[in-house]
Amino acid sequence: MESHTRVDDQALRDIMYIAPESVDRDRHITAFYYVEGSASMTKMAEESAIENSTGTWTLVGYETLQVRKEFGAKISRIMGSGNSGYVELAFEASNYDPEIGGINCLLSDIAGNIFDMKVLDNAKLLDLNFPKYWLEAYKGPKFGIEGTKKAAGISNEARPVIGAITKPNVGLDAKTYAKLAYETALGGIDFIKDDEALVSPKYCRLEDRVSATMEAIDKAKQQTGKNVLYAVNITTRQDKLLELAEKAIQAGANHLMVCGPYVGFGGLQALAEDPSVKVPIHCHRVGHAAFTRNPKHGIDVALWSKLMRMCGADQLHIGSVEGKFYYDKTETQRTISALRQPLYHIKPTMPCSSAGNRPANIGISVRTLGTDMMFLAGGGIHGHPDGSTAGAKAMMQAVRAALTNVPIEEAAKQNRELQRALPALELKQ
Amino acid sequence: MESHTRVDDQALRDIMYIAPESVDRDRHITAFYYVEGSASMTKMAEESAIENSTGTWTLVGYETLQVRKEFGAKISRIMGSGNSGYVELAFEASNYDPEIGGINCLLSDIAGNIFDMKVLDNAKLLDLNFPKYWLEAYKGPKFGIEGTKKAAGISNEARPVIGAITKPNVGLDAKTYAKLAYETALGGIDFIKDDEALVSPKYCRLEDRVSATMEAIDKAKQQTGKNVLYAVNITTRQDKLLELAEKAIQAGANHLMVCGPYVGFGGLQALAEDPSVKVPIHCHRVGHAAFTRNPKHGIDVALWSKLMRMCGADQLHIGSVEGKFYYDKTETQRTISALRQPLYHIKPTMPCSSAGNRPANIGISVRTLGTDMMFLAGGGIHGHPDGSTAGAKAMMQAVRAALTNVPIEEAAKQNRELQRALPALELKQ
Repeated sequence: MESHTRVDDQALRDIMYIAPESVDRDRHITAFYYVEGSASMTKMAEESAIENSTGTWTLVGYETLQVRKEFGAKISRIMGSGNSGYVELAFEASNYDPEIGGINCLLSDIAGNIFDMKVLDNAKLLDLNFPKYWLEAYKGPKFGIEGTKKAAGISNEARPVIGAITKPNVGLDAKTYAKLAYETALGGIDFIKDDEALVSPKYCRLEDRVSATMEAIDKAKQQTGKNVLYAVNITTRQDKLLELAEKAIQAGANHLMVCGPYVGFGGLQALAEDPSVKVPIHCHRVGHAAFTRNPKHGIDVALWSKLMRMCGADQLHIGSVEGKFYYDKTETQRTISALRQPLYHIKPTMPCSSAGNRPANIGISVRTLGTDMMFLAGGGIHGHPDGSTAGAKAMMQAVRAALTNVPIEEAAKQNRELQRALPALELKQ
Repeated sequence: MESHTRVDDQALRDIMYIAPESVDRDRHITAFYYVEGSASMTKMAEESAIENSTGTWTLVGYETLQVRKEFGAKISRIMGSGNSGYVELAFEASNYDPEIGGINCLLSDIAGNIFDMKVLDNAKLLDLNFPKYWLEAYKGPKFGIEGTKKAAGISNEARPVIGAITKPNVGLDAKTYAKLAYETALGGIDFIKDDEALVSPKYCRLEDRVSATMEAIDKAKQQTGKNVLYAVNITTRQDKLLELAEKAIQAGANHLMVCGPYVGFGGLQALAEDPSVKVPIHCHRVGHAAFTRNPKHGIDVALWSKLMRMCGADQLHIGSVEGKFYYDKTETQRTISALRQPLYHIKPTMPCSSAGNRPANIGISVRTLGTDMMFLAGGGIHGHPDGSTAGAKAMMQAVRAALTNVPIEEAAKQNRELQRALPALELKQ
């Protein structure tokens, strides 16, 4: 045992402050947080930086000035006054290996205890900026926007991918499920997906459902000539994901699907990086709003989406413009941007709009979100009074009208399915 | 194609209501939610039940009365009036296979879109009740409370397990880390753990750290005769968890650790069920507060803790009584209860209190939380003015005083380490 000369607390705090110009893109992972509480912004920034890196609530013998200088989080910006505002922290990337530990370890530190801290009433991790070598460890989507369009056979069409979510979500046996898929595929859409509730209940085992559905889709193709992707929901415990993916692919699946927040970053990453998975991965964000919806607390959804892109989501949900879920235009645009903007070698992820899409609102949705998109409808297709073939046709008619700037009422005059859809499919919520 | 006779919306809604007496414990997974919004409680309950099972925002052809009756969620209780209150929903367990899909699929459905819904401003999943056959698919902890005490060599002592979190969290090389572990172990504590930030940075690779630390702990044991557990943080992408566990165990690890919210239910489950993992698993809850802290929105922390118990956490964090994190007495007690109460074959998980524990407050903590507990301190041990050996001794002295009802000031008179600790280790936040 030795005697411990304790470093002065103020000296340890002073070296935490750096100029924004001193942030080193090759060395730091920078993070923006919103914080609010009863303490001063300075105090909240310091406690967050200490808790999220080398320190704790009191001085400890082995945390020397040198340790904090080399490994501690730095405060590069404090914006705001009073008891709330924005803080930029620069974390030493060397503390986190991008492969061993990776995003799970990084977030455990920088998006971990900060949410519990008494000194903060609310905290939200808003954005992250990675050094290039960190991003290089992430392969991103295998297919992305271009690959998804190619798989759907619409590479040469300037239009979004259009899909149907099977409804009812659960309760159909494999045979009925396939029958519904057949009827839907006949309507000319590109994509059919399982609902997030459906994986493999006893009455509709995944392998039976996939075999029957792929057969049904092939049968429809003989009539339409159109390739249809079927995204099979393989959401399960993370160590069984690859096993279930193999089962689905062996049964003929040409697309997979996972629920992102529950399989997590590593679950998705394992699937996307595995060479045996040669089909795109559709990533639902179901459950994300538990930690993203509160504007003051949790993790920003655009940031979360960027991380899912790094981990290999070929498509990722972003909500809908006029639907049954809450919608914030800026948040949606930021999320789309996080998925589409250039990011070194990482392919763009195709944003997927879902929840309340229907022929009547697909025009505004396409105009708002663009064509490098996937649009899905459940009720908006299967709710058609003449059934799912008519529903799928009506949706395609509405999309074509939007892309050629034909008012939807005009298009409805030329297209019976669309005409029947418009009054029937009105969202009343 | 066939013509579709649409079921009456009201008829579909009417069959969703069941008496609480009709809830079938062998058939239903029941869930309690808090909901609030601008609609009536009835409307909010119905939309939640529909969205979380067979339905969507409009009627669809294949959702017959029979489908909704057999597979749809039922509303067994609505409590509250106006625009907020509690809802009990009974989900058909047959929709979710406990093994294929499991908790990840279940939560994707019942703790998924509900958080996004426009009709709800807030929603919180508060509790779940499983049929026995569902629980039987979960093995729970291998060690639990008894096993942890046995591993720590204190089976015959009526006291909690006492541990130290290495501080600084990051920034020490393997050699220095081991030196600190040696000094800490000399003080007579039971348990040493990595901070959540530390997995395997280049300057302190996991295998080097484990070898050096286990050697240091053995050296201390020669002097003290006391076994010390070292929980190695293996938090990483889910598909690499077992690989990293093996690496740690091969290097001599006698305990593992993961960050629960980021490795997820399946990540933990895979580790806990693997026969090659013959050591206990310490589960941190770091990051949970992103989705649990808001009392009106997200997932209840006691419920989340129960699910982690089902998945095999031998110890799980629960916060601290007088520490640096927010504390709600009821929430903490409910969490402890979820971890300790009888649950068929599933062993109790040892609750672990951490964050601002120190000699001065360990008495009230032990009196409040009991002795079937683990108490950890970081700054409360390593912040001792005479170093970590003295810090560990002071903590053990304070625990013994609490258990024998000796006032801490009295105990301090007899114990120099404790005397030195009390004024030095005061939490100022």
